[in-house]
Amino acid sequence: MTVPERLAALRGKMKEFGIDAYMVPTDDFHNSEYVGEYFKCRKYITGFTGSAGVAVIMQDQAGLWTDGRYFLQAEKQLEGSGVTLFKMGEPGVLNINDFLLETLKKGQKLGFDGRTVNAASGMTLSRQLGEIGVTIVPDYDLIGMIWEDRPELSAKPVWTLDTKYCGTAREEKIAYVREKMAGERADYFLLTSLDDIAWLLNIRGDDIECNPVVLSYLIMTPEKVCLYVQTKCISDEIKKQLADAGVELHEYMNVYEDVPKIPAEARVWCDLNAVNYRLASSLRRGVVIINRPNPTRLAKACKNETEIKNDRQAHIRDGVAVTRFIYWLKQNAGKGITECSAAVELEKFRSMTKDYIGPSFYPIIGYAEHAAIIHYSATPETDVPILPEGSILCDTGGQYPEGTTDITRTVVLGKISDKEKEYFTRALRSNLNLGNAVIKEGCAGAAIDYLAREPFWEIGEDFNHGTGHGVGFCLNVHEGPQRIKYTPDRGGEEPFREGMITSDEPGIYLENEFGIRHENLMLCVKAMKTSCGQFLKFEPLTLVPFDLDGVDPSLMSEKERKLLNEYHKKVWDALSPYFAHTTKDTEVAQADNDAEVLAWLRNAVRAV
Amino acid sequence: MTVPERLAALRGKMKEFGIDAYMVPTDDFHNSEYVGEYFKCRKYITGFTGSAGVAVIMQDQAGLWTDGRYFLQAEKQLEGSGVTLFKMGEPGVLNINDFLLETLKKGQKLGFDGRTVNAASGMTLSRQLGEIGVTIVPDYDLIGMIWEDRPELSAKPVWTLDTKYCGTAREEKIAYVREKMAGERADYFLLTSLDDIAWLLNIRGDDIECNPVVLSYLIMTPEKVCLYVQTKCISDEIKKQLADAGVELHEYMNVYEDVPKIPAEARVWCDLNAVNYRLASSLRRGVVIINRPNPTRLAKACKNETEIKNDRQAHIRDGVAVTRFIYWLKQNAGKGITECSAAVELEKFRSMTKDYIGPSFYPIIGYAEHAAIIHYSATPETDVPILPEGSILCDTGGQYPEGTTDITRTVVLGKISDKEKEYFTRALRSNLNLGNAVIKEGCAGAAIDYLAREPFWEIGEDFNHGTGHGVGFCLNVHEGPQRIKYTPDRGGEEPFREGMITSDEPGIYLENEFGIRHENLMLCVKAMKTSCGQFLKFEPLTLVPFDLDGVDPSLMSEKERKLLNEYHKKVWDALSPYFAHTTKDTEVAQADNDAEVLAWLRNAVRAV
Repeated sequence: MTVPERLAALRGKMKEFGIDAYMVPTDDFHNSEYVGEYFKCRKYITGFTGSAGVAVIMQDQAGLWTDGRYFLQAEKQLEGSGVTLFKMGEPGVLNINDFLLETLKKGQKLGFDGRTVNAASGMTLSRQLGEIGVTIVPDYDLIGMIWEDRPELSAKPVWTLDTKYCGTAREEKIAYVREKMAGERADYFLLTSLDDIAWLLNIRGDDIECNPVVLSYLIMTPEKVCLYVQTKCISDEIKKQLADAGVELHEYMNVYEDVPKIPAEARVWCDLNAVNYRLASSLRRGVVIINRPNPTRLAKACKNETEIKNDRQAHIRDGVAVTRFIYWLKQNAGKGITECSAAVELEKFRSMTKDYIGPSFYPIIGYAEHAAIIHYSATPETDVPILPEGSILCDTGGQYPEGTTDITRTVVLGKISDKEKEYFTRALRSNLNLGNAVIKEGCAGAAIDYLAREPFWEIGEDFNHGTGHGVGFCLNVHEGPQRIKYTPDRGGEEPFREGMITSDEPGIYLENEFGIRHENLMLCVKAMKTSCGQFLKFEPLTLVPFDLDGVDPSLMSEKERKLLNEYHKKVWDALSPYFAHTTKDTEVAQADNDAEVLAWLRNAVRAV
Repeated sequence: MTVPERLAALRGKMKEFGIDAYMVPTDDFHNSEYVGEYFKCRKYITGFTGSAGVAVIMQDQAGLWTDGRYFLQAEKQLEGSGVTLFKMGEPGVLNINDFLLETLKKGQKLGFDGRTVNAASGMTLSRQLGEIGVTIVPDYDLIGMIWEDRPELSAKPVWTLDTKYCGTAREEKIAYVREKMAGERADYFLLTSLDDIAWLLNIRGDDIECNPVVLSYLIMTPEKVCLYVQTKCISDEIKKQLADAGVELHEYMNVYEDVPKIPAEARVWCDLNAVNYRLASSLRRGVVIINRPNPTRLAKACKNETEIKNDRQAHIRDGVAVTRFIYWLKQNAGKGITECSAAVELEKFRSMTKDYIGPSFYPIIGYAEHAAIIHYSATPETDVPILPEGSILCDTGGQYPEGTTDITRTVVLGKISDKEKEYFTRALRSNLNLGNAVIKEGCAGAAIDYLAREPFWEIGEDFNHGTGHGVGFCLNVHEGPQRIKYTPDRGGEEPFREGMITSDEPGIYLENEFGIRHENLMLCVKAMKTSCGQFLKFEPLTLVPFDLDGVDPSLMSEKERKLLNEYHKKVWDALSPYFAHTTKDTEVAQADNDAEVLAWLRNAVRAV
């Protein structure tokens, strides 16, 4: 079917169900950042393939809301579809709630699949529309009814992460959550975030690309743990392990039958920002909802000693791969390599580590002006040769049983302008100063972002993205609750805590010129404890040289140069044994050109 | 009556009204920071005179909750009263809500005067207690019933602030609020914050010491403005002015009759964090509460051009007074002067400006180790002589029709230790670096506090107060919504905006040794506008030298020394004409020793 045919079919269904407007978000049933093919209803009904957007279909019109990253792409893809583009954030463009409030009339009905909208947003919408007499119908997946060749729900095998990697047995984690439940006098705990479930039960899967999670729901009581999952994905051995920990298995979709059975008067811990609207609104009247962040969220963010030990190791191995890759880039620029072929090559270097799982996100490898497109990901259509001039931005990461990596290096391949060198150096100062922060316990990310912004703000420049996000352990590359971003977070911010892993990734992007980003992951560790309290600082986990070919040391303060030299010494100490073949770590394969790489590295980490 | 007699009388009343526990907060009916004598019920019933605390009285026990500042004082004042001290924040000490939840039983009743509790807190308490079957009775002022010699409600004359001072006529402000109301489709707007009402109507009063506000409530509709006030305080002339602007006068207490008359289905803008519980809960069922910050709050914070021009002038005149005072301190230390007599002297210097109104808060003048007590205010009992050694911290401010000032200088009176000099210099670095911030529009105070904390955090030190607060215009010395404090604010933070006035007041306090604070008020002004957006920076309003006798320039970076020298040049340019008698400003009286002060100032602002 063409998009107009699909729209016609949907409009037929809408009439059948008495629905005046049907909303189609991008989300899966779990509020995941990325979603599997099964869930791509918005793409199906509009033809727009971007990763963010919401469609609303009515009998006489249809609209798609998306943000600035996707205006050009959406315009092109919506051409002739009959769907109007609403450019979010542009002056005079209504946001989706205001559009619905202005367009729908008393007595009309707004439908959506309540599983694809988080409860808090759904409740706000329901309240706002309720005030003007519009009813919400969250019960039907109308797209599912018309989508004939819909992909199957992903059902990849579930595997388990041994405690030698993750440190804490699932029994202990379950006990921890029960303790938190007791603190809130909760009778039930409803968990639907896929990475939280994976963390809690030490299970992993492959149901979302790059995110090793398992499609599942979980209901916990002081006595029981019920995991709702496609049981065909779980081997008998893992079934037994889970049963031993007291985990009961139920079929994935049955959660929608069981949640409404939770008795009225029960106290149910249910994070309305995480759980979907249909599930939350299926709780009986009289249930007391404890709307607090999931207790798993903070526990997952604070890595334990075993995870930290493993993560350090994963980063050294990943550093060996990325260092080989940088050397390869410098050697091969101009010899027929492209952005896409470079991504393939980097994957080969990462695969030299035994047990390497795969990328932790789609690689962002942007050469020259492509580097200025913040969410660029090369496709065969956009791919360009990499030449021995200018610079290339490489933001990539790997999944290992020992941890998740995420690193950006901007590699200089030949001559760059003085301006680019100045900006490269400013971004490096940002990265170094942020990484050097000493904070008091209680301090959150918004309080240190200025360290990264200052080198740009002082000249009226800025980068239009957050400076840091939390990173999972062999799990999602983006996880909460901490972040580094100066803009006020209305939801309140979680302070840094010992064991959190956060990215430090300032950058600068000049359209049609160049893009620069320097990203390390950093571990939050204890600093001094004094009468004023406990202080915290950051240890870089990522160990790969910053390209000195892009640095003008005269633009750095003495303190900044010292920080750079200290970091490079750490890099040398950690990586050189691999290239010198003097390490005892046999998990990483040796390469023929290691001696060359070693010589290059020696120079790459020189003091400035 | 003694406190035990008062408690017995209250317990009698509680029995009569069927109330099992009676809560007595410190607040007035307007959520004011400071309260008039009429409102000091908690002091009356416990004998504890501190500025913060909540009492709960039951038949068999009574408790007072207060914070660390007041533990010693409360212990002493509660001795023999039968009231138990609950030290807030100490390990194992229940907070007040948890105490009530643990102590009260199903079917029991908690009473309080609902006018003295803000609506949001009252609603939380009501919900929590409701879950365990305890009822709230917010209708009775039982203390008022037993308090025989209760002071009268303050009823000072109302005066008006001419638009030559405040720039914007009340008609314009009313129109602005109506526009905001239309944006929220609000039929009513309920305003009870005293400084917001004073700002909106360009009225001032004297009903709270140091805060030139008028006890009042206000209800606005698209057609009417009803001011609830003690009409005896308003002259006929002002009555006419208000009537001309469409303001209807009603008696102060009648608001409690009129709010319940607002029709069901009406949309009422009512900031539940500002309005009191009794008023909010007297709204009919069916009223739609628009719980958003008052529209006056941000408009009041962003000073207009006239206010800014006047405020700069007020700060120069205040700077002349404080400079005279610092010179006087240096000359007279050891000659019989004390903390209390110094405060009197400073008031004399401020009174040399025509139209000076009075202090903007109780002066904090702490000599030597007294300076380490953050909320110290000298009394005849604590007063000490000021000697020609060590240092003295002077945090004071004045009210002028041209603006409100708030300044802290730490003045060195003789020999100080190397340690004190180091810390004095660190605090100065904090002040200078914060004042030099360049931020992008959208950035809030939490994002720049690190600049002030860094010189202390890097050595494991800290100061236990916010670094900056908003300041009113001839109004409260503390006002929102902006603040500078790194700790996450769950309520969300307002970004800086052009025209906001904020304090920059880092300090350091070593118990029994010394205390240092350096405070300037700074005005948020536009910096560059680029393709990245509008940037903002800060202009110091306060113009008084920092005492170089406390500074070790070798501990400052070159950039910091430059900032200090530039600031001192500004001080010289602004103040020296006054002492040289070359200014055209005739509002400030000349003094006999001005030539001496001029010579001293010349040296005090020398470049380092």
